[in-house]
Amino acid sequence: MKKVKIAQFGLGPIGLESLRLAAEQPELEVVGAVDHDPAKIGRSLVELTGLRSLDGLRVAADLEELFRETEPEVILHTAASNARTTLEQLRPALEFGVSAASTCEELIFPAWKYPALAKEYDALCRHTKARLVAVGVNPGFVMDLLPLCLTGVCRTVERIEVERVVDAATRRQSLQAKIGSGQRPEDFALQLQAGRAGHAGLQESVALIAHTVGWKLDSIEESGEPVIADRPIRTKFFNVAPGEVCGIHQRATGLVGDTVRITLDLQMYLGAEQPHDHMVIHGRPGLDVTVNGGVAGDDATVASLVNVVPRLLAAQPGLRLLNELAVPSWTGGRD
Amino acid sequence: MKKVKIAQFGLGPIGLESLRLAAEQPELEVVGAVDHDPAKIGRSLVELTGLRSLDGLRVAADLEELFRETEPEVILHTAASNARTTLEQLRPALEFGVSAASTCEELIFPAWKYPALAKEYDALCRHTKARLVAVGVNPGFVMDLLPLCLTGVCRTVERIEVERVVDAATRRQSLQAKIGSGQRPEDFALQLQAGRAGHAGLQESVALIAHTVGWKLDSIEESGEPVIADRPIRTKFFNVAPGEVCGIHQRATGLVGDTVRITLDLQMYLGAEQPHDHMVIHGRPGLDVTVNGGVAGDDATVASLVNVVPRLLAAQPGLRLLNELAVPSWTGGRD
Repeated sequence: MKKVKIAQFGLGPIGLESLRLAAEQPELEVVGAVDHDPAKIGRSLVELTGLRSLDGLRVAADLEELFRETEPEVILHTAASNARTTLEQLRPALEFGVSAASTCEELIFPAWKYPALAKEYDALCRHTKARLVAVGVNPGFVMDLLPLCLTGVCRTVERIEVERVVDAATRRQSLQAKIGSGQRPEDFALQLQAGRAGHAGLQESVALIAHTVGWKLDSIEESGEPVIADRPIRTKFFNVAPGEVCGIHQRATGLVGDTVRITLDLQMYLGAEQPHDHMVIHGRPGLDVTVNGGVAGDDATVASLVNVVPRLLAAQPGLRLLNELAVPSWTGGRD
Repeated sequence: MKKVKIAQFGLGPIGLESLRLAAEQPELEVVGAVDHDPAKIGRSLVELTGLRSLDGLRVAADLEELFRETEPEVILHTAASNARTTLEQLRPALEFGVSAASTCEELIFPAWKYPALAKEYDALCRHTKARLVAVGVNPGFVMDLLPLCLTGVCRTVERIEVERVVDAATRRQSLQAKIGSGQRPEDFALQLQAGRAGHAGLQESVALIAHTVGWKLDSIEESGEPVIADRPIRTKFFNVAPGEVCGIHQRATGLVGDTVRITLDLQMYLGAEQPHDHMVIHGRPGLDVTVNGGVAGDDATVASLVNVVPRLLAAQPGLRLLNELAVPSWTGGRD
């Protein structure tokens, strides 16, 4: 079996893990990596990942440089949360007909914030036969794809509710920072309201669900507030005093007229007890599903990225929604 | 939007519900139905379903007769559990390039029991551009598709375990009969061992999971025994005395060498307390998911059948596995 040639775009903590996981797959061959950070450009992938199998590969400054040296078939992208930035970064690949999968949160449903851009890139991809899709755990799985999958056995659906509670103390530094750990509540609340902090992608999850089931939403409302520590909390990365921020509580709802059709409720804070994902489909039949302990974030994110490769290559060319691809699964049992 | 023309093949309790549900969908147009039962041939669909919108339609004796009168684009099939029977029944449609979805249990992974037949029909479908897929709740969802979907966020998977507990007292008469309700334990145990009673499709679910994740199984072992009533149980259809059979406990395991990779455990009996579906993915990350109350059988089965139509028509021609299609979802929100 011919191996699929992969390049990794973005070498932060998630990107490096994606690179390591891709390098372990017998069906994939890592042929290069890109990062814009001057401190990383030119460095050896062996040195960055600790993997000897990546011998001879160095970090390229951009896709143009990468394409002068090698011919990847799929780009794994972990370099931006903003869909416009992601699309611009990936454009040289898509123009060459090279497919890409990205953890970009806004790309889970790019037409929500960038309808014109989504159309433009969909047309580009169809023209060059490239496929582009976004993946992830949230957005991309627990608050959108998994509840959608459940509705597949429903005759009718009235309302979809998902609650996700994450103990952020188990997560990476950048996530603990993003949820305001150790900040003053007033300062962080302002950042949260301005969209400069907190979890990205909740509105996109609502929009993806509504688009798929066919609800024409009149509005998506989002709110968010800090969770305040009621005791001292110490993680690997932060010391939080009582009264300081230890996380976020965000909520997005999708409405048709005055009727709430979709509610996504996300609590992500240091020391959250009984983390879980809980989804309720109000319909016929109704469904009540609990992911006990929740879906662990970072491992699951890189897994969703690497696992999507065969399904991405089997999909129709275009800017695809994740649930238009085949049903997700791990496929590593051939090793 | 042009409606998709549907015909229903099989008019038992599930088939009639499928017909009713299809008739309610604004994107579907019911154009006919087939049943081999002489007591049904020629009868009016209005009379059989109570739906006036089916005015003018009568039961055809077979697909040849149906095709002389109308041109369906998709056949919904609910007439057999045996894959060979199902394939033979659907052959005239597939030869015309007409696609079909079936609740046939063995068709969930037809290559398990009929590898040559599966190849032959796949080639036929590719030639005529027909698509054929099997759907359902079990097999087709809780013990195969849903756990597979969960593995999509796993870096590695070691073992997959699913337990399903169903209170059969809530189900249709034919299911209560199939699980031995009211029979003598010795008699029913013999029928169960001979494969003439009990739940069909457990081995196919194991085979579908293994095929998808890439485990090359050395064997699939199946066992089953009756559940014995310890008190009198009265349902709409059966009176069961203590000491008589009130249901089944079946189990299938998939092994690679001596290592158990897949365990599916099904308990389906009258009066089962706390019905649920529970799936555990042993891997990185591990996942532990409970469908509280379980997935209700009959409504969910017809929903899976009617909901698959748009995904079936978007799939590549051929005899397809359910998880090769796009992610399931209800799409009725446009009404």
